[in-house]
Amino acid sequence: MATPSPGYAITVRVEAPSSSTATSGLAAAVSAAGGALTALDVVESFADRLVVDVTCDAVDSDHAESITKALTQVDGVTVRKVSDRTFLIHLGGKLEVNPKVPLKHRDDLSRAYTPGVARVCLAIAENPEDARRLTIKRNTVAVVTDGSAVLGLGNIGPAAALPVMEGKAALFKQFAGVDAWPVCLDTQDTDEIVSIVRALAPVYGGINLEDIAAPRCFEIEARLRELLDIPVFHDDQHGTAIVVLAALYNALRVVGKSLDSVRVVVSGVGAAGHAIIRLLAAQGVTDIVACDRRGAVNPDGEGRDQFRRWIAQNTNPRGVTGSLREVLAGADVFIGVSGPNLLTGADIATMADDAIVFALANPDPEVDPIGAREHAAVVATGRSDFPNQINNVLAFPGFFRGMLDAGAHRITDAVMLAAARAIADSVRPAQVNASYIVPSVFDPEVAPAVAAAVKQAAQSG
Amino acid sequence: MATPSPGYAITVRVEAPSSSTATSGLAAAVSAAGGALTALDVVESFADRLVVDVTCDAVDSDHAESITKALTQVDGVTVRKVSDRTFLIHLGGKLEVNPKVPLKHRDDLSRAYTPGVARVCLAIAENPEDARRLTIKRNTVAVVTDGSAVLGLGNIGPAAALPVMEGKAALFKQFAGVDAWPVCLDTQDTDEIVSIVRALAPVYGGINLEDIAAPRCFEIEARLRELLDIPVFHDDQHGTAIVVLAALYNALRVVGKSLDSVRVVVSGVGAAGHAIIRLLAAQGVTDIVACDRRGAVNPDGEGRDQFRRWIAQNTNPRGVTGSLREVLAGADVFIGVSGPNLLTGADIATMADDAIVFALANPDPEVDPIGAREHAAVVATGRSDFPNQINNVLAFPGFFRGMLDAGAHRITDAVMLAAARAIADSVRPAQVNASYIVPSVFDPEVAPAVAAAVKQAAQSG
Repeated sequence: MATPSPGYAITVRVEAPSSSTATSGLAAAVSAAGGALTALDVVESFADRLVVDVTCDAVDSDHAESITKALTQVDGVTVRKVSDRTFLIHLGGKLEVNPKVPLKHRDDLSRAYTPGVARVCLAIAENPEDARRLTIKRNTVAVVTDGSAVLGLGNIGPAAALPVMEGKAALFKQFAGVDAWPVCLDTQDTDEIVSIVRALAPVYGGINLEDIAAPRCFEIEARLRELLDIPVFHDDQHGTAIVVLAALYNALRVVGKSLDSVRVVVSGVGAAGHAIIRLLAAQGVTDIVACDRRGAVNPDGEGRDQFRRWIAQNTNPRGVTGSLREVLAGADVFIGVSGPNLLTGADIATMADDAIVFALANPDPEVDPIGAREHAAVVATGRSDFPNQINNVLAFPGFFRGMLDAGAHRITDAVMLAAARAIADSVRPAQVNASYIVPSVFDPEVAPAVAAAVKQAAQSG
Repeated sequence: MATPSPGYAITVRVEAPSSSTATSGLAAAVSAAGGALTALDVVESFADRLVVDVTCDAVDSDHAESITKALTQVDGVTVRKVSDRTFLIHLGGKLEVNPKVPLKHRDDLSRAYTPGVARVCLAIAENPEDARRLTIKRNTVAVVTDGSAVLGLGNIGPAAALPVMEGKAALFKQFAGVDAWPVCLDTQDTDEIVSIVRALAPVYGGINLEDIAAPRCFEIEARLRELLDIPVFHDDQHGTAIVVLAALYNALRVVGKSLDSVRVVVSGVGAAGHAIIRLLAAQGVTDIVACDRRGAVNPDGEGRDQFRRWIAQNTNPRGVTGSLREVLAGADVFIGVSGPNLLTGADIATMADDAIVFALANPDPEVDPIGAREHAAVVATGRSDFPNQINNVLAFPGFFRGMLDAGAHRITDAVMLAAARAIADSVRPAQVNASYIVPSVFDPEVAPAVAAAVKQAAQSG
């Protein structure tokens, strides 16, 4: 099922005989090994031989090795070097900090630095609100992690989390013009994280919490929202919930059902599951059954923490019990934010007619989307190689752009709802169908639409 | 004595009659009010009137107001708007964060973000040293302050300190290609600052402490140097000490004296004074007398903290007592890092022949440099409107460039000495004279020379 991906692209530099069939032999070898050839660049040409850069996508690291091996076995070919394109673009990191003001001569220095800067400092000391006008605070967001729940990789620590936070910061700038900066903390103590982020806040207009394990993430967010006068947003929770709600709006349009009438099963009660349940409940979804590894969470089940207790007390109105597979029967909507391969197509077949399946575990969904599609009306995943990719990048850049532009800090349900509506409405009614319930992540109209909706909702909230 | 400065530049938009003498009347008014006219831009022209932007430098805010008032009094002239150019360039802050990698389409996203980035994360998790290769850590420095001793402004807090830290970060990039990021902490507790900076460190290849009050700054630096494997450098201490030592090398060349034979008086035992005394002592200067507000620090004087006790025990070998003015008599070198107008030209006249005076208090030096020059052979200040400006920007960008390039973290006396020598040697022997003991801050050769010297010393240390 796995297909070659540019995330596993390699460039293999080979020497080949300068015969007329040399390059076609290379192409054939890549193809026979299952690689997706993207370029053949002749970088040097001699009378008897060519130096060629063979660039192709592989499925994973092992596959990249087997493609390389296949190239070495082509007659007369020698492999000189294998470059991993993903590692190449990471060399030296993915962000840079640049001055926005000229510093070419003495007059520039006198204004941007001493002595002129002293007057700007004094203005802010006298009127702290001026920080939003005269410093980077107005447009700058901290992307804060403790490295405890990074992608699907788990607790890999702050240094190893940095490439993700750099990528996130790059997306903030690319999609919404927000200056974002990675803050990777070498501590996983809740009190310490809270006190550090509080202390860092003067430089920032917003805090994006990222890849922090549940339930610690809930307490950190709640306490920071109390302490700070800038928006605090845990993207793994709310970014995901917003995009899920947006996708659900359009999926319900496709099947002609309504939010207040559907039965929803959510698999996974971590950061994302918790936030999805809360946002759906706030939007009037009454029949939500949450499942963890042991099956349906019950009102009378013991709660390990206050967040789990909230779910137990506010979902499952019919008091169903049993495994995920069991409680799925008859449901209209499945939302998976848990782990790989928990369900089969046969399980999806037990759902109600015109079922909606969001299998969002990455990289391997809760159910094979092709198998699910045989029994469900709408299927979405977190993957880019299937239709309907549920990707937070649809939400967070525009969301923070809107909050910064509003100068607001309270993130209400109304603000999140506005963001979800804006994403859903970026797909025009005539375009909505089972394979197109969310816009492309590269649709340039999404972030501005989200920003405008969030700004308006935040200002009127 | 004060002269108009671009740090106090204003642009006054006026309407004037469209007579042939209108603009010359405006220029005359600015000049008569003591302003330095830099531009007269006609922005709109009508049959009967002109709209003109009058740009000029003033001495200070009051002077800017009196210039504006002078313009309103020109016949037929109306002032529409006064813009302060220093504030104008600060709008929205002075830094931005930019992606270094393309994010235009799906393949880019797959490599720079998910799924490709996961492999980069895992590589760092397995081999933490790879963070210097695959993330921004290699080229990134934190500019950390608690806002407790900002410029000459004192304890104005973290938000008001941000424009200075932004300016510093801009200089890091401009002069040495270092990506620097402001960290303005809303705490002045030593333990908390230490634990925050320790926790932040994974993202950074170096820590530049800035504008943190003494004696807290000494303990913070010492503890962080113990905790971290990246260089920790309090610029107000060591940056100043390095540039002072560089200037002293060349000043001693001018007067034909040597480091080990001169009597030095240092006024000020804060961050800068402490570090200057330590570095001079490490370079073999044996006769240093330190003065605080009460006069000479004595070996038998009570020490308020361990840092003050170190000074008491390691300076003043002749055990002199008395006020700054009294102990200055017969000294070869005066170094002031204290406050304005403590001395007069007559005091300088009591120094040894061919005296050297570094009066570095900003914006007003310990002694009027023009008066001092009548009695001293070499005079330097921190100001840009006199010869021999002692400015840390000569040191810190190249210093961190060299440490980052070396991948080193220990800042030894040998490393600081190498930096000072490189700055001093940027003025060629034939160029050294009483008015040119340090290179211009805009000399593009200084930072690379400092970087190369620091790199070599750090790697061999």
